[in-house]
Amino acid sequence: MIKIAVMGYGTIGSGVVEVLETNRDSIAKRVGEEVEVKYVLDLRDFPGDPIEKKIVHDYKEIAADEEVKIVVETMGGVEPAFTFVKTMLEAGKSVTTSNKALVAEKGAELIAIAKEKKANFMFEASVGGGIPIIRSINACLTADKIEEITGILNGTTNYMLTKMSNEGSEFDDVLKDAQAKGYAEKDPTADVEGYDACRKIAILTSLVAGQQVDFEKIHTEGITKVSAVDFKYAKKMGKSIKLLATSKKTGDSYSAMVAPHLLAPEHPLYNVNDVFNAVFVHGNVLGDAMFYGSGAGKLPTASAVVADVVDMAKHLGKNIPVEWSTEELALEDYKNTEKQFFVRTSVDEAAVKEVFGDVTFVKADGVAGETGFVTGTMSEADYEEKAAKLGNVLQMIRLA
Amino acid sequence: MIKIAVMGYGTIGSGVVEVLETNRDSIAKRVGEEVEVKYVLDLRDFPGDPIEKKIVHDYKEIAADEEVKIVVETMGGVEPAFTFVKTMLEAGKSVTTSNKALVAEKGAELIAIAKEKKANFMFEASVGGGIPIIRSINACLTADKIEEITGILNGTTNYMLTKMSNEGSEFDDVLKDAQAKGYAEKDPTADVEGYDACRKIAILTSLVAGQQVDFEKIHTEGITKVSAVDFKYAKKMGKSIKLLATSKKTGDSYSAMVAPHLLAPEHPLYNVNDVFNAVFVHGNVLGDAMFYGSGAGKLPTASAVVADVVDMAKHLGKNIPVEWSTEELALEDYKNTEKQFFVRTSVDEAAVKEVFGDVTFVKADGVAGETGFVTGTMSEADYEEKAAKLGNVLQMIRLA
Repeated sequence: MIKIAVMGYGTIGSGVVEVLETNRDSIAKRVGEEVEVKYVLDLRDFPGDPIEKKIVHDYKEIAADEEVKIVVETMGGVEPAFTFVKTMLEAGKSVTTSNKALVAEKGAELIAIAKEKKANFMFEASVGGGIPIIRSINACLTADKIEEITGILNGTTNYMLTKMSNEGSEFDDVLKDAQAKGYAEKDPTADVEGYDACRKIAILTSLVAGQQVDFEKIHTEGITKVSAVDFKYAKKMGKSIKLLATSKKTGDSYSAMVAPHLLAPEHPLYNVNDVFNAVFVHGNVLGDAMFYGSGAGKLPTASAVVADVVDMAKHLGKNIPVEWSTEELALEDYKNTEKQFFVRTSVDEAAVKEVFGDVTFVKADGVAGETGFVTGTMSEADYEEKAAKLGNVLQMIRLA
Repeated sequence: MIKIAVMGYGTIGSGVVEVLETNRDSIAKRVGEEVEVKYVLDLRDFPGDPIEKKIVHDYKEIAADEEVKIVVETMGGVEPAFTFVKTMLEAGKSVTTSNKALVAEKGAELIAIAKEKKANFMFEASVGGGIPIIRSINACLTADKIEEITGILNGTTNYMLTKMSNEGSEFDDVLKDAQAKGYAEKDPTADVEGYDACRKIAILTSLVAGQQVDFEKIHTEGITKVSAVDFKYAKKMGKSIKLLATSKKTGDSYSAMVAPHLLAPEHPLYNVNDVFNAVFVHGNVLGDAMFYGSGAGKLPTASAVVADVVDMAKHLGKNIPVEWSTEELALEDYKNTEKQFFVRTSVDEAAVKEVFGDVTFVKADGVAGETGFVTGTMSEADYEEKAAKLGNVLQMIRLA
C-alpha cells in the first residue's frame, strides 16, 4: 500500500481523489500495490464529505509523515504552493502538480531538488490537461530532436474563437457566454490575454531545450482584438483563427510566441474546436505528429495527475532524469522570424502595393470601407516597419 | 557504450542506422552513454556501403556475442523473424521490432520470455509508425480504463480514400497511382483488404485488454468495394469515408472490427488525410484523446524503433512489465454491436420503408436509378436480417 497526500481539495484535487477511487483496481494492477490517500490539505473542513477525516490544515504534518511517499499539488499559484512543494521534495517525497504557474517559474529548481533527493517532480497535468504531452517529450519521442512545438493550449479561448467562428458573434458576447458556462473566469485576463498559454509554451520549450525559459520574455498577444469581421475574412480564405503558442528551433536557440493565427485546412490544428487542446510536434526524424484531447476539466486533468502518481509509485527511491537546467535559455528575438501576415487597413489597394509590393488582396462578404490583404513572407521586424509606413492598420493576424 | 545489432537492412533497418547516426549526440544524452551498431544481419553483402564491415549472415553470431545487449528486428513476416527474436531474448538481449505480423501472432509469448530473462520486448513501431501509441497505452494513460480505441492504421488505404474523395476517381485508378508512387505494393492485398489494419488493432486490443487477441477472429472488410458513387453520397452528407480499425469495451470483453466508415466533421479522425495515421482513444476518466502522425515511412518508423532502443538501454537488466498474457481474449461477436448504416439499394423508397421503417433518405448529385438511405441505430445482426429481406443492396457503409 502506497500512501499519498493531496494538497488542495478544489476541482482538480477532488478529481484526483475520485479517479483513484473509480479506477482503484486497474491502478493497483499498474503500480503493483494499492494507492491510498492518507491526507488532504485544505483550509476548509468539508463536514459530511467522505474525505472529512483525512483533512489536515498544516502542510508540515504531511511533510513529517514518513509513510507518505507521494504528494499531489493542485492548489494553483506560485505561493504558497512553491513553499509546500519544496518542503515535500526536501523531505524525500515525490511530487506531481497540475500548476502551470509554479512549473513555469520554479520547474528547474524543483526538478533539481527532486534529483538530489532521489525523488521525482512531475507535471504532466500542467500543460494540455489530459493530453500526455510532457511524457511524450520526455519518454516517447526520445529518438528525435524536436524542431517545433505548436499548441492550442488554452481551452477557454479556443471555445470562444470556435463560437465566434460558428456564430459570427463578437468577442464581448462570447466572453459573457463563456463566463456563464463556467469556461471563463470572472477575471478572464489570464486566458484571453494569452498569459496562460504563454506559461505552458514556456514549460514545453524548457523541456525541449533542456534549459529554463523566462515566460516573461515570450512575445504574447491575446484574442481580445479578434473581431467578427476577422472571421468573415478567415471564412473567405477558407481558414480558421486559433490562438497558437509556438516554439521553433532557430540555430542554437528557440523562437517562442503566443498570438492568434490563421490556419489552412491542411494544418493539423485547423479543426481543433471548442474547449479541446492539441499540440503539434515536428521532430527531425519523426516528421509531423499531433496530440489532441481535453485540455482542462476535472477528470481529464486528474487523469494526467494520477498517471504521474502511477509513474512515481513505480519509481520510489529512483529519480527519472529530466533535462531542464536552471540556466536561462536566451530566446531568439521573435522579430527575426519570418512568416506571412494578414492585414486589414483603411487605405486603398494602391497604397498597400506601394508599401508592401506584391500582396494577395482578400474581399470578405459584407465588409466595406477597408482593404484586406496577405503579405509575402517577411520578418516581423520588416512587417512592423512597413506597417508603420502604411499607417491605418486595423488588424494584423499571422498565418501559421 | 551500448552495442546493438540490427536484423534486416531494408527500408526500416537502414533508417534505424541513419537515425542513430543523425541524432547520435542527443540519443547518447538521453541514454547516458553512446549507442553503437555492432552488427547488421542481412542475406546481402552491401559492398561499398559504410555498413559493409558490420554485415553478418548468421543470426547465431549475434546471439552468441554477450557484448550485444539490444537487438532491432526489422525483417518483417513471422518466420524466420520469430526464431531469431526468440533466440535473442533467450540469450538475455532486449529486442524491439517494427514487425506487426510477428507481434500480433507471437507478442504474448515473446513478452513472457523477455520477462523471464529480465530483458524487454518492445514494438512501438509495429502500430502507427512514428506515433507513440504503444507507449501511450503502456506508460502514459495509466490512470484510465481504455473503453475505445479506433484508428486509421493503414497509410496506403488512407491515401487511396483521400484521393478518391478529392478527385472523384475509382478504386482501380487510385490503386494504380498508389502503386506507381510506391505507397501500395505490387500485391496490395494486405493493405486494401484490411489485413494490415486488422493485425494492428489486434495488437492494440491485446494491450488494452491484457490478453492475447486472435486477429483472425476480428471481422475485417477492406476498401475494394468503395466506389466513386459512395463518395458522392458522402459529400452530400458532409462526411468522409475512412478505413477504421476499432475496438470497444463491451462488458468484460471487447468488440473489434476493421471496415470502411462514414465520419462526421466532428469526429477527431474526420480530417486525417493522405498517408497519415491517427488513433482515437477514449478513457473512462480522460475522455477523448487522439494521436496523429506518420504511420509509415523510413524515418518516422525508425524514430519509433530507436525510441524503444533508448528505453531498453535505460532499463538493461530490468524488465518493464507489460500486461499481455497468452490467455486468449474471447471477443464479443461484432453482430451484437449497434450502429447506424448507410445503404444503397436498387429498390424504391416505399420498399425501404416497409423493411427498415423510419430512415433518412439521401440523394446524391448525379446519381440516379438507386435509393440511398441511413438507418436508425440497430445491431449488425438486425441489419443483416433486414438487408436480406430488402434484397438488391448495392452498398453498405457503417457510420462511425
